[in-house]
Amino acid sequence: MTSAKHLAAPVPPGGTIGILGGGQLGRMLAMAAARLGLKAHIYSDSDDAPAFQVCDRLTIARYDDRVALATFADCCDAVTYEFENVPSEAAAILSEHKPTNPNARALAVAQDRLVEKSFIRDLGLSTAPFANVESADAARGAFATLGGGPAVLKTRRMGYDGKGQAIVRHGDDAAAAFERFNRPCILEGFVEFSFEASVIGARASDGSFAAYDPPKNIHEHHILKRSIVPAPLSPAQVDAAKTIAKHIADALDYVGVLGVELFVAKDGSLLVNEFAPRVHNSGHWTLEACLVSQFEQHIRCVAGWPLGDAARHSDAVMENIIGAEAADWQKLAAGGGALHLYGKSEIREGRKMGHITKLISRRAP
Amino acid sequence: MTSAKHLAAPVPPGGTIGILGGGQLGRMLAMAAARLGLKAHIYSDSDDAPAFQVCDRLTIARYDDRVALATFADCCDAVTYEFENVPSEAAAILSEHKPTNPNARALAVAQDRLVEKSFIRDLGLSTAPFANVESADAARGAFATLGGGPAVLKTRRMGYDGKGQAIVRHGDDAAAAFERFNRPCILEGFVEFSFEASVIGARASDGSFAAYDPPKNIHEHHILKRSIVPAPLSPAQVDAAKTIAKHIADALDYVGVLGVELFVAKDGSLLVNEFAPRVHNSGHWTLEACLVSQFEQHIRCVAGWPLGDAARHSDAVMENIIGAEAADWQKLAAGGGALHLYGKSEIREGRKMGHITKLISRRAP
Repeated sequence: MTSAKHLAAPVPPGGTIGILGGGQLGRMLAMAAARLGLKAHIYSDSDDAPAFQVCDRLTIARYDDRVALATFADCCDAVTYEFENVPSEAAAILSEHKPTNPNARALAVAQDRLVEKSFIRDLGLSTAPFANVESADAARGAFATLGGGPAVLKTRRMGYDGKGQAIVRHGDDAAAAFERFNRPCILEGFVEFSFEASVIGARASDGSFAAYDPPKNIHEHHILKRSIVPAPLSPAQVDAAKTIAKHIADALDYVGVLGVELFVAKDGSLLVNEFAPRVHNSGHWTLEACLVSQFEQHIRCVAGWPLGDAARHSDAVMENIIGAEAADWQKLAAGGGALHLYGKSEIREGRKMGHITKLISRRAP
Repeated sequence: MTSAKHLAAPVPPGGTIGILGGGQLGRMLAMAAARLGLKAHIYSDSDDAPAFQVCDRLTIARYDDRVALATFADCCDAVTYEFENVPSEAAAILSEHKPTNPNARALAVAQDRLVEKSFIRDLGLSTAPFANVESADAARGAFATLGGGPAVLKTRRMGYDGKGQAIVRHGDDAAAAFERFNRPCILEGFVEFSFEASVIGARASDGSFAAYDPPKNIHEHHILKRSIVPAPLSPAQVDAAKTIAKHIADALDYVGVLGVELFVAKDGSLLVNEFAPRVHNSGHWTLEACLVSQFEQHIRCVAGWPLGDAARHSDAVMENIIGAEAADWQKLAAGGGALHLYGKSEIREGRKMGHITKLISRRAP
C-alpha cells in the first residue's frame, strides 16, 4: 500500500461519506451521517442491501472490483466500513484515493484471531490463554499446554456469531475439529466468567477519545440477544473497561468507533475476548440512551469532526429481533420501546432483522 | 373527489410510504419510516430536495402534474404530506389511488385561516377575536368591530413564518394593509398572552390518540427560534392543551400528527392560534426526549400502525439553526447536544438549516 491520504480538514455538511457494506450497520451509519447533513454513498456487493434504502448514492459491485472501488472513493470525501472482513487489497485501494478509516492495520489485526490476541496480550491486557494451531498434532499439543480443560478451537479468520468455532474437551476433539475446519486456527482456554460485557469506544482524528458505559451482553445460540446498560460493574471496573478500549485505539492510531468484547471474570478482572473495528451490535442502545449514538460518533470520527457527547442519560435494555421473531412485527410495534427494523427483504434463521430498545426511565414518579 | 381509499391493513415492513414534499420535514419523516423498516418515496417539485438524500425512491415533478401524482401514488402503499398547502386537486388524485392522510378536509380547513378559526370556534375552543375581510372598507369595519385595539391582518391562504401578515393600529392601517395584500384576509385582534406554546397530537387510524407534552415556544422575526419542554403550565393546563388537540383531531377524523399553536393568556386560559396538519417544528425535541418521535408517530398513523410511546423521558430545549448560523457548523458540532443539519445546499436568510436539541438530564448527580 502506498501512503494513506489524511484528512486535511473535516468533511463539511453536504460532503459525502463512503460506506463499504450495506447491511444494518451501514444503514444506521448512513442515517447518522444524514442527521449531520452529510450524504452517504453505500458500496455493496448485494443489489438488495438494506442501506440502499436510506443513502444518497449507491454502488453495486464486488469487493475485489478495483475499478469500482477507486471510482467509489473518488465520489466520496472520506471512506469507512461497516464490517471488519474488508479484503486488505480493497482497503489499500480506497485509502490510496481518500481518507479511509479505520486504518489498514486495525483491519489486519482484527481479521486474524491469533494476531489480535497477541496484539492485545502485548499491550499488557488480559485474554483467555490461547495457542496457535496449524495442524491436528498442534491442536493436541495446544490442548495439553492450555492445561487439559475445556477449550474452544476457532478459525483464525472470518468467524462470527459462533461460526467457525467448536468446543473441545479432549486432545482428540481438538484434532478432529481442526481437521474439520482445515484452516489455521487458534485454541483458546475456556474462561470461567461471571458474564460478558463490552465497551464501545470512539477515537477522533485528533486523538481524542470517548467511551460509552459498558453493557452486559447475553448471547443465545452464539448470537447477541440482549444488552443491558449499565452492566453490574463497579466504577473502577467501568473505568478499566474504558481504559482498555482507549489503550487498543491509541495503539492502533485508530480513527472511528470500536467495540471491545470483554469477559468479566469471577474475581472481577476484565479479559479481552476480541475487538471489532466498527460500530457494534452491543452499542445499538446508544441511539436512544445517549444524545450522540455510536453511529454518529463513528461518522464524526471518519469525517474529522469533534466527538459528540457519549454520556448516557438513561438506563436501557436492547434486544435483538432475530429470524422469525420479525414476523411478529405488529406485536413488537404495539409493545412499547423504540423499534428498529432493518429493511431486510427476507427472514432467515439467525438473521438479525431488527432490535428494540427500552429505556428504564429515571424520571421522578 | 371520489371516495377515498382506506387502509384495509397496516402497511407491513418493506412497504412504501409516499411523502409529498422534500424539505426537512419530509427528510425526518423518511428517516423515521426507515427506522420501522418502511421505505420512503419522496415527491418534490425541486430537483435538490433535502429528503432525496435519505429516501428509497424519488419523483421530481410539479404538484399539479396529474400523471406524475397518480404514478407516484401507485408506487406507494400509503401517502402523506410534509406541508399543508397541498393543492386540493393533488390531494384528491392521491387519495383516489391510495390511502392518503391527513384527509382532504383537514387540509381544506388548515389552508384557510377564516375557515380554520371558524372551525375552531365552532368546536367551543377559544381563539383571538377575528373577522372576515374582503375589502378595504371591510378592513376598517372589522377593525372597529374588534374594539379598535391593535390587530393583525393576515392573508387567509399561504402565509407562514410571518409572511402575509401586518400589524395594524388604526382602521386606515387595516385598509392600507388589505390593499397591499389584495387578497381575502382575516383580521385578528391582538391577544395579550404570557407566552406561546404548542401541543403535538397524533391520531391513529383506529381513532386512538396520544399527545406530547406541550413546549413553550419563542419566536424571533416571526420564525420559531426555541422550544422548551416542559412549558411552565399546570397539570390542568397540560391536560387542557392535549384535549384541544384531541378535540380538533377527532372532529376532522384526522389520521396523523398535528401541531396546534396556542397562546397562553394572562389569566391562564389557552387560545388556539392555528393548527398545522403535519409534523411541527416545535415537536423536533421529541427525537431525543421521547422513545417515539413525532415523525415516527406520524408514519405509524399513516401506515395504519399502532401509536408509539409519546412519553417524555427528559426535559429538553430545541433551538433552530437559521440562515447564516449554519455557517458556524464546526462550533455547533463541538457544542454538545444533538445536532441536526438538513442537507440544504444553500444558506439563505431566514431559512431553517438545522436544529440542535439539548436534554436537561434528570440523572442523579
